[in-house]
Amino acid sequence: MVFTILSKDTITKARTGILKTRFGDVETPFFMPVATKASVKYISSDDLEKIGIKAIISNSYILSLKPGEKIIQNLGGIGKFMSFKGAIFTDSGGFQMYSPKLYIKSNYEGVFFRNPFSGEKVFMTPEKSMEIQQAIGSDVAMCLDSMPLYENSKEEIEEAVKKTTLWAKRCKKHHDKLQKNKKKKQLLFGITQGGVYKELRKKSTEEISKINFDGYAIGGLALGEPKEEEYEMIKIVKSLIPENKPIYLMGAGDPTELMEAIALGCDIFDSRFPTKNARHGTLFTWQGKLSLTNSKYKSDDSKIDSKCDCFVCKNYSRAYLHNLLWHNEGAGLRLVSYHNLFFLNELMKKTRNSIKEGKFYELLEKIRQIYR
Amino acid sequence: MVFTILSKDTITKARTGILKTRFGDVETPFFMPVATKASVKYISSDDLEKIGIKAIISNSYILSLKPGEKIIQNLGGIGKFMSFKGAIFTDSGGFQMYSPKLYIKSNYEGVFFRNPFSGEKVFMTPEKSMEIQQAIGSDVAMCLDSMPLYENSKEEIEEAVKKTTLWAKRCKKHHDKLQKNKKKKQLLFGITQGGVYKELRKKSTEEISKINFDGYAIGGLALGEPKEEEYEMIKIVKSLIPENKPIYLMGAGDPTELMEAIALGCDIFDSRFPTKNARHGTLFTWQGKLSLTNSKYKSDDSKIDSKCDCFVCKNYSRAYLHNLLWHNEGAGLRLVSYHNLFFLNELMKKTRNSIKEGKFYELLEKIRQIYR
Repeated sequence: MVFTILSKDTITKARTGILKTRFGDVETPFFMPVATKASVKYISSDDLEKIGIKAIISNSYILSLKPGEKIIQNLGGIGKFMSFKGAIFTDSGGFQMYSPKLYIKSNYEGVFFRNPFSGEKVFMTPEKSMEIQQAIGSDVAMCLDSMPLYENSKEEIEEAVKKTTLWAKRCKKHHDKLQKNKKKKQLLFGITQGGVYKELRKKSTEEISKINFDGYAIGGLALGEPKEEEYEMIKIVKSLIPENKPIYLMGAGDPTELMEAIALGCDIFDSRFPTKNARHGTLFTWQGKLSLTNSKYKSDDSKIDSKCDCFVCKNYSRAYLHNLLWHNEGAGLRLVSYHNLFFLNELMKKTRNSIKEGKFYELLEKIRQIYR
Repeated sequence: MVFTILSKDTITKARTGILKTRFGDVETPFFMPVATKASVKYISSDDLEKIGIKAIISNSYILSLKPGEKIIQNLGGIGKFMSFKGAIFTDSGGFQMYSPKLYIKSNYEGVFFRNPFSGEKVFMTPEKSMEIQQAIGSDVAMCLDSMPLYENSKEEIEEAVKKTTLWAKRCKKHHDKLQKNKKKKQLLFGITQGGVYKELRKKSTEEISKINFDGYAIGGLALGEPKEEEYEMIKIVKSLIPENKPIYLMGAGDPTELMEAIALGCDIFDSRFPTKNARHGTLFTWQGKLSLTNSKYKSDDSKIDSKCDCFVCKNYSRAYLHNLLWHNEGAGLRLVSYHNLFFLNELMKKTRNSIKEGKFYELLEKIRQIYR
């Protein structure tokens, strides 16, 4: 069993579970920091360990360009390469279709990308993505999906759904072949698309759920669409995915967004949001968001969050961190990123405990109030 | 006694000692990382503590502009502001005369600087510098000196020597007034100038040494002049400064340069060299310098230095750090900076032990060989 449900909330669809990866077990719900280039921005693997992070996601497309999947494979895989003691997911590069700097065009065969480092054209196919992710040695691979933009027309999104299903089948087939006879298998997650169009999201989920993936991701959301639309789409996906499969909402990292998605039955999350926000001075606290770059903090001797146990809150004042951010000092960018990841990781811990203790709804309401 | 000599080498002028500051004792010789804006680049105060750094130097001119000396004073001084548990030196801003972005002009009264953050003109006088450094609450203040460029004419350097002496007297007078009746006194170091002109360096040192400073710094060296000229100047200063005064060579941070200067009788050092070099991929090891950005390291699984005990060498491979530097990842910039500071701090520890055990010359020869 890849995924075992441990406990369920009675009011919402929230649940706790265990995702079994070849690295080890990870308790759900959990949040993954993003380590696109094999590093979370400003946060090294030892920091991740201190925070208590059990899983991260990297980007197999970027890693295949630099340092190259063969180098990582020869060095014993991405976990050893990064010295990260946890489960590692890799995204396929599908999300990079969102970047005008990287994306050129796509057809039914695959995607033409620009190599941002050399300028060369790269043709990515479902098969190639599976091979790269296997070589990189992540614990969970993601299918190559076709990622539309939020502003794309319904026709364009329909086309993306079609490609996503086609590629999902090819990913699964090739992944099965590659993993055959392996003792410790890499997991493979499917991804649903469909933008915020109910019928397209339903179609995509129905098609993807027919393929027996280890887990199912919700792609193409958390991109700035109204939250109501996002939650509507989660409900559709959730209603169509078997109960015993983990659901991964890609790109969500705002505290309320995570809590609402957990209430709707999601188990796994990733986002650059907490670290990016931190670098721009927006810090998560148990009293809500704090804009540390506000000049009122320049002489504030108190901690970011008096209720936080992270070493940043134990050691440094708002005034000092405000000053470091003002000067864009690397040490400061690390400290605030550390704090935000610590906060989200604590929030996930509290969430798991609250579900087990039948108190999830209370915590949800609290976070709704604090972060409204 | 501000400075107590503990042991002396018999072959060279190397010595160990104790510098007594109001924060506490620091054993010499020691190297100070540079925390211009109240932070060593990419390295937070907790990292400094883990490395074992006992003293750092910050820049009172920059701090007076942002966050402003009053804010630091109200927050309990720079040590508390930074949460750094060690002695803190502050430079006056004299060194900033080296920067065309910051320096406008100077006269006998003081220096006109540009505030790089607001564009405004700032007039810095010896008295104002003493007041700023007192407010910031550093443990050791530096005189406002007149810093010439290496390429300046002899006449310009002579003029700088003249100003430096004039300002040193005013600094001492004003500092004495400010420190009167204080229980725990801030120390004040004088600075000699004179470029690489023997007679000017001699003149400056004679004039400055007549003023009873707690220590004497050698300014205007380690700026790219030939090493022989640098060492020649150190010899002149050393011959004129009383034996019981600590000597601080400003701006030196290369392993051989430190060792040669210690052999000539210097006790204190600071430089951006180790962290700046690290960020550009030049790492110090017990086998010499290593250019980590060289592509031959992209798949090298070994540690930066197998003989190093720092957590970076314990956890990360050359290949991984090479990749992080290639991507200019903040986490990587921190890790390599940490390693170089750890190396220099270890080198200083070994140096102190070698002097005590009568083995300094052996270590000096070893470093000369490794870093030739």
